[in-house]
Order: sequence, then C-alpha cells, then structure tokens
Amino acid sequence: MANKPTLPKGTRDFSPNEMVKRQYIMETLKKVFQKTGYQPIETPSFENYDTLMGKYGEEGDRLIFKILKSGDYLKKVDDTSLSERDLQKITPSISDKALRYDLTVPFARYVVQNHHELAMPFKRYQIQPVWRADRPQKGRFREFYQCDCDVVGSDSLWQEVELVQIYDEAFTQLNLKTTIRLNNRKILAGLSEFIGEEDRIIDFTVALDKLDKIGEEGVVKELRDKGFSEDSLEKVLKIINLSGSDEQLLDELNQLFVDSAIGQKGIEEMQFILNQSKALGLSSAKLKLDLTLARGLNYYTGAIFEVSSDEVTLGSIGGGGRYDDLTGIFGLKNVSGVGISFGLDRIYLVLEELNKFPSSANTLTQVLFVNFGDNEVLETFKWSRALRSNGVNCEIYPDSSKMKKQFDYANKKSIPYVVIMGSKEIEQKRAMMKNMETGEQIEVNIETLISFLKVK
Amino acid sequence: MANKPTLPKGTRDFSPNEMVKRQYIMETLKKVFQKTGYQPIETPSFENYDTLMGKYGEEGDRLIFKILKSGDYLKKVDDTSLSERDLQKITPSISDKALRYDLTVPFARYVVQNHHELAMPFKRYQIQPVWRADRPQKGRFREFYQCDCDVVGSDSLWQEVELVQIYDEAFTQLNLKTTIRLNNRKILAGLSEFIGEEDRIIDFTVALDKLDKIGEEGVVKELRDKGFSEDSLEKVLKIINLSGSDEQLLDELNQLFVDSAIGQKGIEEMQFILNQSKALGLSSAKLKLDLTLARGLNYYTGAIFEVSSDEVTLGSIGGGGRYDDLTGIFGLKNVSGVGISFGLDRIYLVLEELNKFPSSANTLTQVLFVNFGDNEVLETFKWSRALRSNGVNCEIYPDSSKMKKQFDYANKKSIPYVVIMGSKEIEQKRAMMKNMETGEQIEVNIETLISFLKVK
Repeated sequence: MANKPTLPKGTRDFSPNEMVKRQYIMETLKKVFQKTGYQPIETPSFENYDTLMGKYGEEGDRLIFKILKSGDYLKKVDDTSLSERDLQKITPSISDKALRYDLTVPFARYVVQNHHELAMPFKRYQIQPVWRADRPQKGRFREFYQCDCDVVGSDSLWQEVELVQIYDEAFTQLNLKTTIRLNNRKILAGLSEFIGEEDRIIDFTVALDKLDKIGEEGVVKELRDKGFSEDSLEKVLKIINLSGSDEQLLDELNQLFVDSAIGQKGIEEMQFILNQSKALGLSSAKLKLDLTLARGLNYYTGAIFEVSSDEVTLGSIGGGGRYDDLTGIFGLKNVSGVGISFGLDRIYLVLEELNKFPSSANTLTQVLFVNFGDNEVLETFKWSRALRSNGVNCEIYPDSSKMKKQFDYANKKSIPYVVIMGSKEIEQKRAMMKNMETGEQIEVNIETLISFLKVK
Repeated sequence: MANKPTLPKGTRDFSPNEMVKRQYIMETLKKVFQKTGYQPIETPSFENYDTLMGKYGEEGDRLIFKILKSGDYLKKVDDTSLSERDLQKITPSISDKALRYDLTVPFARYVVQNHHELAMPFKRYQIQPVWRADRPQKGRFREFYQCDCDVVGSDSLWQEVELVQIYDEAFTQLNLKTTIRLNNRKILAGLSEFIGEEDRIIDFTVALDKLDKIGEEGVVKELRDKGFSEDSLEKVLKIINLSGSDEQLLDELNQLFVDSAIGQKGIEEMQFILNQSKALGLSSAKLKLDLTLARGLNYYTGAIFEVSSDEVTLGSIGGGGRYDDLTGIFGLKNVSGVGISFGLDRIYLVLEELNKFPSSANTLTQVLFVNFGDNEVLETFKWSRALRSNGVNCEIYPDSSKMKKQFDYANKKSIPYVVIMGSKEIEQKRAMMKNMETGEQIEVNIETLISFLKVK
C-alpha cells in the first residue's frame, strides 16, 4: 500500500503546463474545423468486440485492448477450451468489448447506425483518445489522441481541395511552415500497370514509400527479393528518376499512362486538386506531388495526403486520403469518404522544439493575491471577483503563510503578477502590484488594476 | 458482417447537436475554473490494477472494468486455479490494468507521484470520462464524464468559501437557479454523540440522508431495525424536527453539543463558511445548512456540499466535500483536500428541459454556399475564406446537385443562411443571401455579407 504508485506502461499524465499547450493545439484545430462546417461527434471508448475485430488485420487484432466481461466471465467457456488453454476460443467468450483502436471504424459504425438521420454529405471532426497494445517506445504510446476530420457521402473532388485548405489554414494558425505532399492511388495503380506488375501494387508501393529511408538501391533490392523482373525494375528506376515541377511530372506520367485508363483518371484528379488549390492560393503551406507517397494504401482509393514540417525533421504530422467504401465493412454500400488527421503529439513536439507556443499557452493564472489573514482575504475575494468578471484569471493564496512561501508559490506556477493588500491599503482602497519578472512594484486601485491586466 | 452494428450496453454516441451543447457546458465550467486559478490535468484512461482495486469497497471492485493482458494472458495462471475456475485467483493474473472508476483516485495517485514538483496548495480541474460496469438504466451509463475541481495541500476554510463561489458563478453563467446545501461531517459526528450512537455514525447518517425519500417514519424504522435504542430514536426525532434559519439551527446545535468537542468544531467551520459567503454575496445560488446531508460520508471529514436545481426536480447536479487524507491510500500522509464536482449529464437534462441552451449552442454552421458547378465554386471558396477569417462558420455544398437537395441539406443542418452565386452574380461581384427562417432574400456583396453576419 505504501509503495509509490506508478503509471501503466506506455501511458502518460498531462500536467497543467502540458495541458494548456495541448488545449491550445486542439482549440486551434477545432476552430478551423468548425469554421469550415465540420461538426463534432464523440463515440464510446469501447465498442463491441465484433465491431473492432477483423478490421485492422491480424497485427491490429493483436494490438486491440480487450475488456474482461463483468461477473462470472468464465461461464461460457467450456472445460476443454479451458484445459487446453485455447486462447482463440477463450478470448471471445470472456471479452465482449474492446477499446477503440482508431476513430475511423467507430465513425463508420456511427454513419451506418445513423445514416437515415444524417444530413449527407456528413462532415464531422472527432478528437478522442485511442488505445493500442504496442510495445511502448520513444514517442509511441499505448494511449494517444487522434484528431480526425472527414466527409462522407460525396465523390466531389472539391472536398480534397477543401482539406488542403484546412491543412494550410490550421498550420498557418499554428505558425508552422509545412509541405503537403499529394499522391493518388489511381496514379500508383497506373504505375503498377506501367511496370507490368499490376497485381503486386502493394509490394511495389510499400517499397516505393521507403525511398527516402532506404534509397534507390534499397527499393530495387527489396523488389528483386520479392521476385520482380529485371524489366520491371528498370521501369521502377525510370519512375524514381522522374523529376521536375508538378506539371512536368504529370506530363511525363501522361506518356507512361497511354494504355492505363486508371492512370489517366489519377492524373485528371491530381490536376484538378492542384489547379484549384493553385487558383485559391495557400497561406503558408507548400503543396507538392509526390509519386512515392503510399501510406495505408490498402484502404485509400483516390487522393493520398501527407504533411510534414519544413522546420523540424520528425516524419509526418498529418495524413489522410479518399476511401471509396468506408461503411462497406458494416454492410452499407456506396458511401465514399475522404478525410485527414492531425498528429497531436508530433505537432506538440514541433511547436515545443521551435518554441512557438504562444505565451498565452504558458500561464493560466495572471494574478495571485497575497493572504494576510481573514479580514484582508475577504477584501481580496471582492477584488478577484471584479477581475474575473473582466476575464482575468486570478487566485488567492488560501493560507496566511509567510510572504516567502506565497511568493514561491507564484513563481512555481509562473504567475506574472502578485497583488498585496494589507489593512492599510484596504482602508485606502488601494493595493501594491508586483511584476514578478521585473520586480517592479506599483500602487493601483481596482480600476487601474483591471484596465492594466485586461490589455495584457 | 452485414448485420447492423450496435453500441455496447450503457454507452452513447454524441451527435453534433448534443456535442455542441455538451461543449457549451464544459467550456463554461472550464472558464470558471481557470478564472479561479484551477489548472487542468489529464490522467490515463486505465490505471494499474492495484491502483484501483480496493479503493471503492467490494461493490466498487466488482464494477471496475478490467482489461485483459495482451499476448498469452493465461501464462501466469496455474492449472488448479484454471480447472477450479477460481476467479479470485485468475482475474489478477490475466488482467494488470483497469479503466478508471472516478477521477479522485487517479488524482490522488498523480499528487503522490508528483508532489515534489507541484506548487502546493495544488488546484486542479479534470474533465474526463469514467467507466462503471453498472446495470444500465435510465440516466445511468457505463461511460460518462466527470467534471471535478479540487485543491489539495491546505486546510484553509477559505477554499470551501471559494468552492461555494465557484458553484454560484458556474450556475449563474449557465443561467440556472440552484440551492447549495451545506453540512459538515463534524456536525454529523456531534449529532451521533448527542443521540449516544457515536460508533454507528454511518448507519445513522445513511438513514438521515434518506429523510426526503422515506420520511420521518422511514428513518426511525430503518434505525430501529438496526437496533438503535428508543432513547436514541427520540433524539433523532428531535434533530429531524429542528427548524428555522441557519442561525437558529446553529444556535440549537450549540445547545445539543455542549459536551461534544467535535460538534463544536463543526459549528465553527459551518459558521465561517456561511458568514464569509454571506459577506461576499452570491449572484444567483441560495446557500443553506442541511443537517440531513451526508453523501459519501466514509471519506468526507469536514464540509459536505450538494447542489440541486430550483427549477427541475432531478436529484443533485453537483456535490463534494473536504477529505483530510486523500493521498493516504498511496502512503503520502497529511495532504488535506477539498473538492466539488459537476454532474454534466444532469446539468444537460436541466438545461434541455428548461430550454436554456443559448442559441449559439444550437448551430455551428452559419452559411451554406450553393454549388452551381466548378467555375462558381472556386469563387465561393474565396468568399467563404473571407467570411471565415472574420469568424463566420460557413461551408460549400460539395456537389452541383439540384437546388432542392442543397436547400434540404441546409435545413437538416439548421444552417440559418444560404448564399447563392451564379455566373451572373459572380460577374457583378454580388450574391443572393436567403434567410432560411423567414424566406427573405437580399442581394449582398462580400463586404455587406461579412458585416451582416459578424454582428449576428
């Protein structure tokens, strides 16, 4: 009992300082989503076992946290399974729900359950934690927030254009310089046709996606090991060595895709998104075609996005794409969706490293009132109420402790101003205000105090 | 697979309409907390098994959701336990973490782990979901948000005074009329001494707490069944029939407590909180001594609070109290705490029933731009960007569908204004704006549109 308690592996507490910064990021994103007509939903932390299992591949199934049934959870387990320790049979009998693994499957479930009531196309954002039983390591946690923004129910490419605008707007608001890389599953399909390996698009694109990590030789080696012909590898090299502006790349692709209808379609979509984004202009982000970008290719069917910081090398801080059959897994056909997500933890690290959190995200309390004793405190309650009704965050030290202790408290909480009101000051309806950074002290009355702090 | 998916028992999705209202309540509370110097923390959704088990009594232990270990979870279970289906032994072997049951125990764990770094007294608020394997019923869920605000590390009664102010401020902001009832564990201890049953304070106060449900006779019957003497029951009746103003009640108690030091102390504390609150004044709440209020008496040691709506009968919408030994369960002695919580779901029901959600909590998107085709849409993107940079939430219908469909969409989402820009309007840099409620249409340019919607 007296052992110092610990946190479960891979989980975190968030201190007030961290929380204020996280809230700053989340509030910024929320405002951008809402301004663009995206509306919030929340789904439960756990879903039925069957809703989640089988949706993320074998590896995913393993990483899903299962919740033990309440009561006599062994009731439905037969003696044989138990004595043979047959986990395949036991697990679904002792667990009927599991913690969500991402926000996409619960969102699909939500759309299927509610699609008669939803105004389609349905634009939603969702900011909630997800859980994965991954091996914890630097920057990888078992509980982390996802922050998704999706539209379902329309094929319009204007939505891709809008999502590019949202990335640009959000990262501009966060004061970060970024590059949005863009690709299209149909272009990747065209490329697979061009190299003569259309049946092995996954192997091909998984290798291509690693180009910046393992280099040209690495890609070729991986594909050769997988049995790609020398003829196809030559064509892969040709693709890797395509260069030039986005226009030039698309021109080159046009020549490669003379016989690929799907490739042509991909070029057309890409052109639309690039042209309209160019016509609209971007505030701070750069938009760039990247033929090697693949991401979670197995579910994307059209555009693929990925965002990275231009200032800090840290992998992607956002990504997404078009998926033509989001709700098919729950039996509702023909609901196309497109969405993007923001990597909250990584955006936090980038802002921290660049020291770009605004000062408003560094302190919550602006004023501490010193406590001299019960008579004085009553007066400070009145002053603090006046400050609060003018939007100033302030607090009163609860005990009449030594001055040093009270000032230490202000310093530890990074409270910028301390207000001192002894009985003499109260009689004169005045107080001393100390700037904790400069040490400067000035005498104020309640009106000057309010007007001074309101403009800060 | 094609079966319509369902939600786990006792859980809820929150639609955009519900979310906007929930966010309104949470944002209102957050602002009040922050203005008063309370800072946010978050703790992980699951804690180590041992952190939670044994902290909420036997019933609590049963209601805690346990999470199955990953991998071969039966590895540490011996054959005998397994064949005997000995759940007492099996459960702690196959589960090493569990979903949090409330925010108080995780908060205590947080304080113990971080108390060297924390500025004491530590004021924190925390708004996160908790999970209980309760039998779901009307208004009771297996996942629900708690919303707590606590100070630890000081005995000062000014904090009780401050918490009363916070209740008053929060419910004033929410436009709700409330009564805050106040009691004190020490007064209840004094009363137990007075009736001569100081060892059975729990039985006594549990019965007393039910007075408004089961009446005077019910209380007496329950205590008689528990073996309270007729002499003590007579005194219980005397207590129940005490009446008058708070001052008068305290006077009466003073006479009953001539021999009770703890009772006297309780009166003193009560007097302080009532007097200072009176001197400060309350904006909309009423504050009232209630001798029958007990709540979760087993951990409260001083003041006990409970808030109810004056307008809707729905039980308590908030409650809290002083607990002298919050962190003792984790081996850190002498850390006194006092805190209150807000019942988010019930506050929601009260606001809904009274129709008191502000209109800003009813719609998110203010303007829908009609889609006439790609050429026109590009222009609407520019207009919408101008609106958004002026704080107006707006969206563009993604497909050039029939007008009726686009207007139906606006109606379904309760979007108050629709803006129509055909090629003629675009040429003239104008648009038609339709008020969806009145049907009225006016011609606007971008400047008049901005100034019109900004003031709304």
